[in-house]
Amino acid sequence: MIVILKPEATEALITDIVSQIEALGLQAHLSRGQFRTVIGVVGEEVKVDPEHLKAITGVEQVLPIMKPYKLASREFHKEDTVIDIPCPTGGVVKIGGGHCMAIAGPCAAEDEAMVHQLAREVKHAGASVLRGGAYKPRTSPYSFQGHGEEALRWLREAGKANNMPVITEVMDTRHVAVIERYTDIFQIGARNMQNFNLLFEVGKTRKPVVLKRGMAASISEWLMSAEYVLSQGNRQVILCERGIKTFETALRYTLDVSSVPVVKQLSHLPVIVDPSHAAGDRQYVPALARAGIAAGADGIMVECHDCPSKAMCDGPQALLPDTFESLMKELNAIAKALGRGFTTAPQAA
Amino acid sequence: MIVILKPEATEALITDIVSQIEALGLQAHLSRGQFRTVIGVVGEEVKVDPEHLKAITGVEQVLPIMKPYKLASREFHKEDTVIDIPCPTGGVVKIGGGHCMAIAGPCAAEDEAMVHQLAREVKHAGASVLRGGAYKPRTSPYSFQGHGEEALRWLREAGKANNMPVITEVMDTRHVAVIERYTDIFQIGARNMQNFNLLFEVGKTRKPVVLKRGMAASISEWLMSAEYVLSQGNRQVILCERGIKTFETALRYTLDVSSVPVVKQLSHLPVIVDPSHAAGDRQYVPALARAGIAAGADGIMVECHDCPSKAMCDGPQALLPDTFESLMKELNAIAKALGRGFTTAPQAA
Amino acid sequence: MIVILKPEATEALITDIVSQIEALGLQAHLSRGQFRTVIGVVGEEVKVDPEHLKAITGVEQVLPIMKPYKLASREFHKEDTVIDIPCPTGGVVKIGGGHCMAIAGPCAAEDEAMVHQLAREVKHAGASVLRGGAYKPRTSPYSFQGHGEEALRWLREAGKANNMPVITEVMDTRHVAVIERYTDIFQIGARNMQNFNLLFEVGKTRKPVVLKRGMAASISEWLMSAEYVLSQGNRQVILCERGIKTFETALRYTLDVSSVPVVKQLSHLPVIVDPSHAAGDRQYVPALARAGIAAGADGIMVECHDCPSKAMCDGPQALLPDTFESLMKELNAIAKALGRGFTTAPQAA
Amino acid sequence: MIVILKPEATEALITDIVSQIEALGLQAHLSRGQFRTVIGVVGEEVKVDPEHLKAITGVEQVLPIMKPYKLASREFHKEDTVIDIPCPTGGVVKIGGGHCMAIAGPCAAEDEAMVHQLAREVKHAGASVLRGGAYKPRTSPYSFQGHGEEALRWLREAGKANNMPVITEVMDTRHVAVIERYTDIFQIGARNMQNFNLLFEVGKTRKPVVLKRGMAASISEWLMSAEYVLSQGNRQVILCERGIKTFETALRYTLDVSSVPVVKQLSHLPVIVDPSHAAGDRQYVPALARAGIAAGADGIMVECHDCPSKAMCDGPQALLPDTFESLMKELNAIAKALGRGFTTAPQAA
Repeated sequence: MIVILKPEATEALITDIVSQIEALGLQAHLSRGQFRTVIGVVGEEVKVDPEHLKAITGVEQVLPIMKPYKLASREFHKEDTVIDIPCPTGGVVKIGGGHCMAIAGPCAAEDEAMVHQLAREVKHAGASVLRGGAYKPRTSPYSFQGHGEEALRWLREAGKANNMPVITEVMDTRHVAVIERYTDIFQIGARNMQNFNLLFEVGKTRKPVVLKRGMAASISEWLMSAEYVLSQGNRQVILCERGIKTFETALRYTLDVSSVPVVKQLSHLPVIVDPSHAAGDRQYVPALARAGIAAGADGIMVECHDCPSKAMCDGPQALLPDTFESLMKELNAIAKALGRGFTTAPQAA
Repeated sequence: MIVILKPEATEALITDIVSQIEALGLQAHLSRGQFRTVIGVVGEEVKVDPEHLKAITGVEQVLPIMKPYKLASREFHKEDTVIDIPCPTGGVVKIGGGHCMAIAGPCAAEDEAMVHQLAREVKHAGASVLRGGAYKPRTSPYSFQGHGEEALRWLREAGKANNMPVITEVMDTRHVAVIERYTDIFQIGARNMQNFNLLFEVGKTRKPVVLKRGMAASISEWLMSAEYVLSQGNRQVILCERGIKTFETALRYTLDVSSVPVVKQLSHLPVIVDPSHAAGDRQYVPALARAGIAAGADGIMVECHDCPSKAMCDGPQALLPDTFESLMKELNAIAKALGRGFTTAPQAA
Repeated sequence: MIVILKPEATEALITDIVSQIEALGLQAHLSRGQFRTVIGVVGEEVKVDPEHLKAITGVEQVLPIMKPYKLASREFHKEDTVIDIPCPTGGVVKIGGGHCMAIAGPCAAEDEAMVHQLAREVKHAGASVLRGGAYKPRTSPYSFQGHGEEALRWLREAGKANNMPVITEVMDTRHVAVIERYTDIFQIGARNMQNFNLLFEVGKTRKPVVLKRGMAASISEWLMSAEYVLSQGNRQVILCERGIKTFETALRYTLDVSSVPVVKQLSHLPVIVDPSHAAGDRQYVPALARAGIAAGADGIMVECHDCPSKAMCDGPQALLPDTFESLMKELNAIAKALGRGFTTAPQAA
Repeated sequence: MIVILKPEATEALITDIVSQIEALGLQAHLSRGQFRTVIGVVGEEVKVDPEHLKAITGVEQVLPIMKPYKLASREFHKEDTVIDIPCPTGGVVKIGGGHCMAIAGPCAAEDEAMVHQLAREVKHAGASVLRGGAYKPRTSPYSFQGHGEEALRWLREAGKANNMPVITEVMDTRHVAVIERYTDIFQIGARNMQNFNLLFEVGKTRKPVVLKRGMAASISEWLMSAEYVLSQGNRQVILCERGIKTFETALRYTLDVSSVPVVKQLSHLPVIVDPSHAAGDRQYVPALARAGIAAGADGIMVECHDCPSKAMCDGPQALLPDTFESLMKELNAIAKALGRGFTTAPQAA
């Protein structure tokens, strides 16, 4: 850490600050410039909260040198993490290290028939994982909140029928156990990226976690949330960029496609993009999905529906299965041009 | 709702859209302009999700006329809501309708003695409610996470000793019951503003709820979260502006002081400001607190500490009790100039 | 336009508002809902400033139906605009309608030899237009401000030697004439996107204009700035997305790659991306360039330098010519996968 | 400056970096931590662009210790700058160091009579400086662009008749001379905050300059723009916060009231707020003006009109003179509570 003192810091104050730093078990190296004194702090940085130092009178700024996350960092784990997601009737879906994955399905699991129908369609088009909401985070308390455990059952069955692992969102610490019984991947939504108790709970399971970026979260805060999961022993975290809040209102959120190469540089974890929630409008979903893969993402998560105007939620952003199929062709071509590829598990016997 | 069609919408499509609108139990009034057809939709707007209409082919935009929240709206409840918070040993603290309230105390309840000491000091300086964290949301899994139920006990005792109602943050649906036993006001933090299940749970209690604005939440989304609590029958919601994420990094967040008069216009609920978390640096807390009260806020929530460099969290933003006392004098003068006032409950016997 | 009245608007007020609207030469269609009265305004919308209506007492909101720009809109000009940029010694570079273009060169034209050297290198790697700064907008008054007319001469000569059209930034209405003499394309920088007099001046010339998006400009404001140029009779505007200001500080700006398909939907004008200024760091430039082309952009503008640590400005973001060459191979593959292509003019004889 | 190397930097690379730093005339102090090497750079920091160092291979980050502005900094000039603005017929208006100032008048100078009428009214209500637009920056090329030199004449006459200095916006380097002839204060608008040539030109005059903050400008960039003016010898810069672009769309911009105390800490220059452009809606102007003064601003700039719905621009945000008068009473009370005060020049004889 680098501690920069205020220009008016007296000798007595400097001595006091140094002794406070040393009391924390750290070494302090003074460097007196023409205008300011700077203290280089050496020692086990992770053990000291920069805020302790920043709160000392006479300190102007504290600049950390080390990243605040450890297990999530590329320095801790140099190689790309590759996650093997077992398929219900055999085989695995791989993600990371050049393996791309498409997650697709309806926003909400609306009824048994539609879940099965869409599962077949998205698998045929090239998706390897089936998504579907059972517990839905809705802005309005008066909106449809999901079919709960029943929906989990539909997803489980449709996953088995098509040999697709299943992912669904968990919003409440009290639901972790039931969701774990039915699904293969936990999804933590953007609104819960800093629901720290929930992160601890999914961190205690041994199932992969797709962690969406909060709409106001910096990349560093996002990796800190991954660290919550990793710190509990669950090393299977997949990051998902889904758009951030900016002043631009043409689309619902601004997909921060730069976050893909930045995360790849800072971390070993796989990262995918969710163009559906970013755009909020199906006509822009293909362009954003292509941009994500071209930027280096390890996959996409998209919403599909056979009749978007009848969808119980987020109809405007749902792709028709046909469009999804064309999109998968484009994504395969882009991935191939960059030396990477999408795969699916074999169809169920 | 106003539905604007794409310029290329054919007659057949228009007829189809109208019938889809009517199938939802609404009336459709067509208006054909030179370039576009616009449909005015009349009926019980709250029952229809604008997304259903937006998902119809040929629809370009759907513009809601009504606000998406109801119980939180000024139209539903014309007068300012005034909330009476009972004090442990008699009397009430009022907030809303011209009554201002100062909430103060440590970021975290660190030990019994410090909680009592600070409670006395902030009460003396003019605070009427005691704050203190028992369960702390921390960006890092390796940081201090709060003393839990023990801290709740310290707060309860200190509240009684100084006749101050107590507020603490609730982060997990599983903690609502225990926190309800010890405290007088629930605080929902910015990171949980859209933790919808948590909002439902505190909505089922009958204790006031301070609902902080999420750092990426629009004012409309914030009021929708209030609606979650109100919809469960708990009408005692106090909104708290605590800064939003913007490109400006000089301070930790940008206090959106405009949200105060905007909320006052849209809603009847009291609104306070939290200058401590917005600034993240104690030297700027007084200016932001004054700005909030001058803009019309019904109170402030600030963090205080007797020795900020020893604080277990957020030391850099904690005011010394002396500074808090001077600040309260300025705030009283500003409130008075605007025809409003701060009050405290009588000291415990 | 749709005019929404406040709930408390009286009959007398409504009558008055209607007569004010009719006085502007427009028709007013009243629609009385349960809670609010809405007025549909029909007529030549572009002639009336929505602000006149919004300023009337009793009006809550004014919702325009028409876009505020006309010549820039896809409705005015259905086909993609294709711009032919003549090359100094024969042939044209095409942009728009499936034709992609790479603009490359140094941030600043530092001396004659380096301009010639880089021109050769970027041409060889696949660039068709040569960029270079002669008048530099610098955040600090103490930084290098460009070599002015001398630099224009170097660019002109290097352009001729390699048969590449030349682009340079214009920052001041007083420089339009001299820049017009030496270059083929005007560049309006992000900081001048709303320098309206400058837009008028380049609009009066007949040379293509690359109009960068302001870092706080909405897509709509950007198209309005294009309208300034178009309104003067210059129909050769190329839009350039170069990143917006958001809360994320990992990179210098956030490249809003969504703006590419949104602009394509709203407008017929070509749009390119500038990954260099968005990233501010060369290691992220290739990923952003690929994302832009995959999202549908008609080209890129990138900065190159043979020795970035000696560059007079923006060294950290300059690509080495070798890296640029590899990038062009990837971009060609992505463009081809999407049915599009980059071309260059033949080398000078 | 602190230079942080990448973890993989070899000894040879470190030696090379040190010699590059020394070649710039600086001293390099190496500090080897467990994971990274850090170089403290001592010397005349302002002479070296951090970008040169950042562009060196093996460098991860460069952290400047010194501020990038000098003349604008509180370190360079410890006392608050107080500016005396001479009034046309005697006396001065003071701003800074506890002296507050209200600037008021119409958005655009629409005709001679209205300018005189409003000047009288705002002077009566407590304004000391008269504002009015002659050259208007308009988002649309089809909107009213101002009455130019004629409007300057009206303002000059109305200023004389009421003994008020006059301020108007300059948008083009070619207009500096004519505006200098007629007015007492130059206004640089938000859209031109980084129109560097314009800053140089007003810097060469000796009239005060109100420099509005760009809607995407960080506080540091704003002070750098002030430095452009100061560097030319014009030391009379008044900063004006007028709202920034954020995701919140309830009002036109988000008034960043925190910028007031932050600027006061970093700089000696006076700072005022413009609540009219921030709000874009007159009902919110008083609350924002009060917040600005309570946060420590040295004044306000507001738009007034006798008949907002007939205003040629920005009608919705114009205060009626009566409301402005009530607002001035509140602002005087708040300023007084904080030991400060507004003054006006004596009425013209």
